[in-house]
Formats: sequence, structure tokens, C-alpha cells
Amino acid sequence: MRCFWDKRQLAHAPALELHNGGFVPFAESPERAEAVLAGIGATEAAFDHGEAPLRAIHSEAYLALLWSAHKDWRAAGREGDAGAYAWPVVRRRPLDLERIDARLGQHSFDASSPIAEGTWEGAYWSAQTALTALGAVLGGDKVAFALCRPPGHHAGADYLGGYCYLNNAAIAAEAAVAAGRRVAILDIDYHHGNGTQDIFYARGDVLFVSIHADPVMDYPYFWGHADETGEGAGKGATLNLPLPRGADLAAYLPALNTALERIAAFAPELLVVSYGADTYAGDPISHFKLETSDYRVLGERIAGLGLPSVIVMEGGYAVDALGANIAGFLEGF
Amino acid sequence: MRCFWDKRQLAHAPALELHNGGFVPFAESPERAEAVLAGIGATEAAFDHGEAPLRAIHSEAYLALLWSAHKDWRAAGREGDAGAYAWPVVRRRPLDLERIDARLGQHSFDASSPIAEGTWEGAYWSAQTALTALGAVLGGDKVAFALCRPPGHHAGADYLGGYCYLNNAAIAAEAAVAAGRRVAILDIDYHHGNGTQDIFYARGDVLFVSIHADPVMDYPYFWGHADETGEGAGKGATLNLPLPRGADLAAYLPALNTALERIAAFAPELLVVSYGADTYAGDPISHFKLETSDYRVLGERIAGLGLPSVIVMEGGYAVDALGANIAGFLEGF
Repeated sequence: MRCFWDKRQLAHAPALELHNGGFVPFAESPERAEAVLAGIGATEAAFDHGEAPLRAIHSEAYLALLWSAHKDWRAAGREGDAGAYAWPVVRRRPLDLERIDARLGQHSFDASSPIAEGTWEGAYWSAQTALTALGAVLGGDKVAFALCRPPGHHAGADYLGGYCYLNNAAIAAEAAVAAGRRVAILDIDYHHGNGTQDIFYARGDVLFVSIHADPVMDYPYFWGHADETGEGAGKGATLNLPLPRGADLAAYLPALNTALERIAAFAPELLVVSYGADTYAGDPISHFKLETSDYRVLGERIAGLGLPSVIVMEGGYAVDALGANIAGFLEGF
Repeated sequence: MRCFWDKRQLAHAPALELHNGGFVPFAESPERAEAVLAGIGATEAAFDHGEAPLRAIHSEAYLALLWSAHKDWRAAGREGDAGAYAWPVVRRRPLDLERIDARLGQHSFDASSPIAEGTWEGAYWSAQTALTALGAVLGGDKVAFALCRPPGHHAGADYLGGYCYLNNAAIAAEAAVAAGRRVAILDIDYHHGNGTQDIFYARGDVLFVSIHADPVMDYPYFWGHADETGEGAGKGATLNLPLPRGADLAAYLPALNTALERIAAFAPELLVVSYGADTYAGDPISHFKLETSDYRVLGERIAGLGLPSVIVMEGGYAVDALGANIAGFLEGF
């Protein structure tokens, strides 16, 4: 399997994040990518597709914020990385706000996703890596892996959160649609892919299926409940399969079978997989019980759909096991 | 003028708040109340009106959170005071969430309003102090002052933020409505009273008028714009008069005249004034240019309406000048 990666993704390196009421070292670290690289071996560099595919998903105002937030934050006399602390929970609407604090709040849903000096560069090349992997599949490869970091599935059309800034999976899926393919997205990160869901929520032409920890107890809390099934033309094109904490392979496989049946019924021509390895038993911030050997099984099952597939990296924070957990999944695939 | 205060309000004493990307000492400190007490002299204690007037404004789920959040936060193994860090910016809806982090996010709009061990007690007695001042006015006094702290005008029916937990002004206004009075609320804190606005936004029986810093640049950013005028039966019963930074008395008085004309036209039988002294030139977090001697003028003008009035304390963070700024306003009144 061809694997893609661009070292400019390492430019995104915030120092700290707000966690459990205090600041701690940023968990979605550049070391994560290095651990994956050690596990998967050789990679190919990303090809620059420019900003047009990003603009197909994200709003102009949001992209402008990502691009300038760190500079604006420092210009306002602040230290450290830019971070939101006030949010429009009620009557959210477009507003022409000036202050950086306001713009950050307008385009964020948590306080744990700082914008550092290199965030735009890292996020840009993470998205380009996903697009390059898509290009390989559109060019005839059966499957390709994009080592994306920062991850993307929590980022909406106009908001960041959950360590995510540009939605790599959505950008690749939309580019595949633009290339004439019927697309399904399968999200198997521990956390619900709320950004991806929101982006396609009112569309019937892209199927979104997610298996994740029940948001009643786990981040991102406010999305990913089983009764969220899409709206308007998208009604029925969103399927959420939340699982309780503690789920092991035996508990996971029935949900995966349901997901694969739904995808097969949709009859897509291309599959985008948002793959997070934070379902691993040893993950420091998650609570499923998959073992390293289980990821080969997941890869095999999903590959059984027989669909051209782009695998996009999402979360996974047990850095020591990350390489083996990714490699096992790709080998199974 | 009779002044009311209850020392149990001092139980609310968070240690730190998130500000400009780092934790700093909590600005809405118990010392604020002590500074006001030194300025106004003798006070009378609050009378306990129970929880019913609070439930007339705030949701059961929100009150339950305020009551247990600090305990739940500690039970989850966290240190310090409870604080939100993830918010439902999109598709906000009622959800039956379990984790304390989720419940905090569901009922907050910023990360700067911690729930400490004594927050419920302090907020409860702050609301009771407002109700006691209302009782004096309903009993025949022309005007009464409630030294409320924590303040209230940023708290909505089911959310906290901006150092506010229970909306003292809204609770007093609703209790006055229940007592058969036609009520107007005038909010002259530096910051827009978003919580009060939201609570009465769809109601035509209570007028809400606010003079505040333009939210394009100042907190709370997402509310207080001039085009917010109410909805449904409340259309036209909200009037926002944002002013640019740097406004002095000469810039302030035309807005105040507009506000007073609107209130007079509404023909209320009782006025609730949300009074913040953070319009003061020396305020450390605000940017208007009112001087201590100006507050007497504001008091005189508002008293010129000739309405029975309950003055409820909101913000003001220049602790050294706070006593004089409150006393001047009350003397003018």
C-alpha cells in the first residue's frame, strides 16, 4: 500500500492545551507522526493541490482566521498560542466581529485546540497529504494511506476543535465527488467525527457512518447520538453507532458489520476511512479495549467491501504502540 | 436609600480564571463587595425567598448543575474549581449527558466562570438580596439597592458565563411581574447583558434596554448588536445601544436619553437597573471613560423617570474606586 506524508505537517506544534481544568503538554504532538512513520516504513511526499479543495469545504472567514490567528493573538499582546475561551452557544449566526478573542470563539467549540505559529502550515500539508492519497486511488490504486496530522474529523465547515483544523477526510471526499465518484465515509476513531457529520449532514450524495464512544459520556458530547440521522436531502445519510466504554473486539464487530452493510447498500464507488487508533486498550485518553492484533481484523473486514479506499489518519495517543496499531490495520487492509 | 447585602455571598470565591490564554487570579473577587460596602455604609440583610423565584427563570437541569458541579468535578478526580472547555456551538439541543465536562459545556458560554465550592451559596444569596430589595420597593420604598455579587446579567435561563450564575436582575423582574407590575430593565454595565436579553427575548411584557460597549470588539461578542430587537411576541421589546470604546459622559448621555425615552414610552410600573461601574475610566478590563463624578449624573437622569426602582449591582473591577462609584450613583438617584 502506498503511504503519503509531508514533513511540513510537523510545523504544527502547540506547547500546551487546556485539559481537566489546567494546562498540560499538547497531546497531539509531532511525535505521534514520527511513531507512525517508524511503524509503516517508506512514504511518498504530498503533492500541492492548492487551496481550492480546502475552500470547497471550509468558509473563507474560517480559513482567514486559521491563517492569521496566531499573528493576531500576538499583536493583541498575548503570550503563547491562540486559544478560544468564549463561545456563542445561543443564537449562533454570522457576525462581523473584530477582536481576535471573538473570532476564535466564533470558530471553535473547545479550548483544547490552540493555534500555534505553524498551525496553518501543518494543517495545510495534512490536507494536501489526504488529497495526494486520493489522487493515487483515483489514478488506479486500490487503497492508499494518508498520514495526516493534525487530524481533521472534528473540524466543521467553519469551526475547529478536538485538535482538528482542516477536515482532511471531508476535503478528500469532496474532491472525490468533484471527480465524479459516489462516496461513503467510515469513521472508526474512538471519538465521533462531528465535523465530518456536520459538513455532509444535509446532503444525500455522501454517506457518513461512524462507530465511536457514546457521547453521553465521551467527547465531543454534543454530537454523535444515535438519533442524529441527517436532515433535509441528507435524511438517512448519517448513521451513528455509539458504543459504551469498555468495548472490546467482540463488542465492536457487530457495530462494524452494521456499518459495512449500510455502506454496501449505499453502493459507493469510493470509501474514505477516518482511522483513529485511539480505540486501543492502552490509549491514555480513551476507553475501548481493542488490542494491536485486532486492527488487522478491522482492516480485513473493511477491505472486504472491495471498494477503492483512502485511509486518512485521525487520533491515537498511545505513542509507543501507534506504529504497530497503524501498520496492523494497513496490513489487514 | 435602603441597601441590601448578605455576607453569605462571600462564599463564592474561585481561585483562578482563564484570561488571555493563561490562568490569572479571579477578578470578580469578594473584595469587590467589601469595597462597595465601605462606600455605601449600612446595609440590611437579605430575606430568604426560597428557590421558587429562581426556578421561574432558570431550568431545573441548570440549577442542578450549579448545585453539584464542584462536587462532581472533584469526584471525577479533578483539582481546582470546575470549568467548561467544550461547547455545543452547532445544533444545540436538549441532551441527557452524564459526564461533568459535558454538562458544564452544555450550560456555559465561556471558560472564565469557574464553579467553586461556595458558588451555589454565594449565587443563591446574591439572588435573594435582589429579591429582598424588590420586596422593599413593592412595599412602598421608591428605590432600593441590592449589592449583588456574583453578578447576574450574563447568565441565561440555562447557561452561565461572564462571572454570572443566577440572573439577579431577571429573577427580580420576573418576581415583580408575578406581583402584578409592568416591568422594564435598564442595563448600564459596560458589557451587554446577554443573559437578561435571552431570558426575555420572546416576551413583549418586559422591556429590556442596554447601553454597552460595541460587541464587535468587546465581550460578550455574540450578543448585544443593534439589530437584536426581540422575536415573536417580544419583537421590539429589546433595545441595544452599543457605543464605541472610549465613550465619555458626552458620548454616553445621548444613548441614555434614547434609553430613557424608550422606557417612558413603554410606561412601566417598576424599573430594574442592572448597574455596573465598569464604565469607569479606571476600570482594568473595560474601555469607557466615565469619571466618578459622572455616576451622580447617571443616577439623577434615571431617577428622573419617577419610577419605583430596584438597582441591582453587576460588574466593576476598579476595586479602589468602586465604593465611590456606587455611592455617587445612589446619591444621584
